[in-house]
Amino acid sequence: MQDDRNAFATGRRTLMKGAAAGAMLFAPGAALAQSGDMAAIRKAVETGHDASVARIQDWIRNPSIAAEDLNMDQGADYMARLARDAGFQHVEKVPTDGHPGVFATLDAGAKRWMGIYFMYDVKQFDPAEWSSPPLEARILDKPDWGKVIMGRGAVNQKGPEATFLAALHAIRAAGRKLPVNLVLVAEGEEEIGSPHFSQIVQRPNVFAALKKCEGVIIPAGWQAKNGAVSINLGAKGLIEVELVSSGEKWGRGPLKDIHSSQKAHVDSPVWRLVQALQTLVSADGNTPAIDGLFEHVRPLTAREKALIAENARENSEADAMKALGVKHWVNDEPWQQSLERLASQPTVNIEGLVAGYTGPGGKTILPARAVAKLDLRMVPNMTAEDTLAKLKAHLAKRGFGDVEVNMSGGYDPTETAEDSRVIRAQQAVYTRAGVPHSLYPRSAGSWPGVVFTGAPLSLPAGQFGLGHGSGAHAPDEYYVIESSNPKVEGLDGATMGYVDFLYQIASIT
Amino acid sequence: MQDDRNAFATGRRTLMKGAAAGAMLFAPGAALAQSGDMAAIRKAVETGHDASVARIQDWIRNPSIAAEDLNMDQGADYMARLARDAGFQHVEKVPTDGHPGVFATLDAGAKRWMGIYFMYDVKQFDPAEWSSPPLEARILDKPDWGKVIMGRGAVNQKGPEATFLAALHAIRAAGRKLPVNLVLVAEGEEEIGSPHFSQIVQRPNVFAALKKCEGVIIPAGWQAKNGAVSINLGAKGLIEVELVSSGEKWGRGPLKDIHSSQKAHVDSPVWRLVQALQTLVSADGNTPAIDGLFEHVRPLTAREKALIAENARENSEADAMKALGVKHWVNDEPWQQSLERLASQPTVNIEGLVAGYTGPGGKTILPARAVAKLDLRMVPNMTAEDTLAKLKAHLAKRGFGDVEVNMSGGYDPTETAEDSRVIRAQQAVYTRAGVPHSLYPRSAGSWPGVVFTGAPLSLPAGQFGLGHGSGAHAPDEYYVIESSNPKVEGLDGATMGYVDFLYQIASIT
Repeated sequence: MQDDRNAFATGRRTLMKGAAAGAMLFAPGAALAQSGDMAAIRKAVETGHDASVARIQDWIRNPSIAAEDLNMDQGADYMARLARDAGFQHVEKVPTDGHPGVFATLDAGAKRWMGIYFMYDVKQFDPAEWSSPPLEARILDKPDWGKVIMGRGAVNQKGPEATFLAALHAIRAAGRKLPVNLVLVAEGEEEIGSPHFSQIVQRPNVFAALKKCEGVIIPAGWQAKNGAVSINLGAKGLIEVELVSSGEKWGRGPLKDIHSSQKAHVDSPVWRLVQALQTLVSADGNTPAIDGLFEHVRPLTAREKALIAENARENSEADAMKALGVKHWVNDEPWQQSLERLASQPTVNIEGLVAGYTGPGGKTILPARAVAKLDLRMVPNMTAEDTLAKLKAHLAKRGFGDVEVNMSGGYDPTETAEDSRVIRAQQAVYTRAGVPHSLYPRSAGSWPGVVFTGAPLSLPAGQFGLGHGSGAHAPDEYYVIESSNPKVEGLDGATMGYVDFLYQIASIT
Repeated sequence: MQDDRNAFATGRRTLMKGAAAGAMLFAPGAALAQSGDMAAIRKAVETGHDASVARIQDWIRNPSIAAEDLNMDQGADYMARLARDAGFQHVEKVPTDGHPGVFATLDAGAKRWMGIYFMYDVKQFDPAEWSSPPLEARILDKPDWGKVIMGRGAVNQKGPEATFLAALHAIRAAGRKLPVNLVLVAEGEEEIGSPHFSQIVQRPNVFAALKKCEGVIIPAGWQAKNGAVSINLGAKGLIEVELVSSGEKWGRGPLKDIHSSQKAHVDSPVWRLVQALQTLVSADGNTPAIDGLFEHVRPLTAREKALIAENARENSEADAMKALGVKHWVNDEPWQQSLERLASQPTVNIEGLVAGYTGPGGKTILPARAVAKLDLRMVPNMTAEDTLAKLKAHLAKRGFGDVEVNMSGGYDPTETAEDSRVIRAQQAVYTRAGVPHSLYPRSAGSWPGVVFTGAPLSLPAGQFGLGHGSGAHAPDEYYVIESSNPKVEGLDGATMGYVDFLYQIASIT
């Protein structure tokens, strides 16, 4: 679910002006362990370019999809091999009650440790919707962006993750030692809501290793056309649930689909689902109406409002609307207010509805079962557990206790302090590289960062990366390899971004 | 949609006692043109048995499915050939704005004319759900019933229709003249709600031919285990509509699916559909709440109530519940009241819901479009046109004018007088054959009989037939060829039923 978190970087003008040119990133900086290191590493990055491209392509060609139980064990093995190849000395496949994860450490004898979060799974796809076969990872020319790899997982997250690994390969190839030690934790269930990720992190050896870290990043590639990136200080939490109404559980209506003429004297589980659903939101569908859902909602702070106001000023509302294909925000609210809502409000969304006959035309049946796929997003200080309990209680109180609420995955909101080293190191890299960047209080998208930022680990955690890709969860997902836009880094520039980040983390006060 | 109309014949005890044995049907009766005719025809039926079975099988192997635009032109040609082979002298393919129909006449020089309605299309099917391939029309042993043909269309309606044709073949093979002249009208769009059938009937030559008829029957094979059949004096009307909510029509929400994190400030066409839907029915989903929908509903007459009371007494509520897989009727009403509701109340049913992601697990999208497939059933004196207009007005009045209401097909309710020759001839055949039979005021299922019973034709019309099959619209649809149940006719007995019916129509006063 690592997409769309930087939607409002689109069209952003420079917020914090760094050095003027991207080339600055490759000049020796204060963070470098030794003068000259950066040039040598840059050379190794260039030498390793073809191998790095091949690494992304091969990974895309070996998909793991948790929702379809596709190649999960193989995917974990593949992930473990990638870690070993990149120099991790200890690499361990970690079993869970679901699909396995991978835990790896690279002890470079450095003073500080840094955590890295990877997902090795990708979202489902339908090849018929793609202009290039999603598992072929073809290299194509994409107007405005340059040469891209197109394939499922290209930007979400194999491309950025492999770019991070390319940085490790390059540092080693250049004969340098890593400036920080690394802890890698990878899961294969991100796209189904990370239901077992905390099991990985809670393993004593994994927990002990992470506890030493300055924080955790997940590699990302979200530069906008003007080169800008957002640094998210947190993300909403998420639960995904299926609401299932059935004649079987209800004790009314049919046990299997029957002829629709019987509706006159037989109850309908589909109507029941519709009636249960409509109690969950306001009449306009925009405000959650689940009893007590706002109980723990923490209002935006003055600082958060100020950051949003800055983003609203610096980003084009028209561009955002165009990108989303919308003409109005809810309640016809103005841009800044809609961004405050985006960051601060919990949501109840219907991802999908499935009941009865779904093919072309009609079929005169009274379905025995109806399903609504929902996602609920949470802000601090809501929790997944409490939100699920409130949803169930709300339905039960209205007599819908038979409507099953099956949670498939989810996690609490995540937050990271603005003054943490992980955030300040990101700002330093972007500033040195001349990349326009801004702080954003909370991404409306979700990722399981709370596993790191929440108790007992309580580490800073967030996305970081240069480069660009798009189309997560959608057809024609891509990741830029050679950028035709001087403001946006290609694979090698993005690789150097990770190199610089590791040196920044090592040295920042 | 020719299924489930005899659901309450299941378990019926003899209502009207006829002659004790089914064999009576094959004894010379008052209706016969000449003594000895029946025996000769019976012999021809037996001689032609294998050819009759092959005729059903071959027709099933050549499916036409209007919803999928599958073999429609070929299906009409096939239908035309069947008519020619059965002795119709004039056979004509009739174009419509949709798929073609077939019009045929057989002038035997008799005094009276009888209309026959055929459908050559079948319902969609999923071979994966069948225990026997749905287009192979295999002959299998079915416990309790005997040898059956299993395949799509076996009972709905190719089996019964081909049985009627077998009667014509047998009469000719026996060297007899048909006792009545025939008008055949066939359509290929019954399963999509007969949207163009009235165009066929309104053609001047078709209309003129039908106008001469005593009435119209559609062949059916719905004998229950005890041999019983219902004679329906009418059927509810039906409209099938798709309600479509989309960002495009609404002018709010997205134009294409977007990431669900945007729900906080983007309107959802899916929630809009849910909110629009829930206004259409009472909170329990059972009573239509469309403004003015009951305006033209005609209450049951005393005679209709009496017929239902008789049916309620003579039929097993437990068997009906078991067949439908339900434990309660709506509002926990008692059996008789629920049957009155079934015959007398209009309904709004959801056949299917489709929005966003419908596969396994979840997908964090905010869908741009949501569709509900509805069927609305109507009782006299409601009309399809008025019901559609009321549905649209109801939505518009509540601000849902952007929710598209796309009607795919439908027709008004149909009614036939109890004292018409078509009904009395049926009663005579069943009585002579010792088949328990009862009158039922109105089937809750629907068929386009109103094209015949309504103005300007105003003919009696209904289903007729002996024999048995089941599974219309469902997997493993079948039609009995050789009955192992002495109370239920096989193919030859059902064929003789049509023979007798034609003689009854010719002679009844």
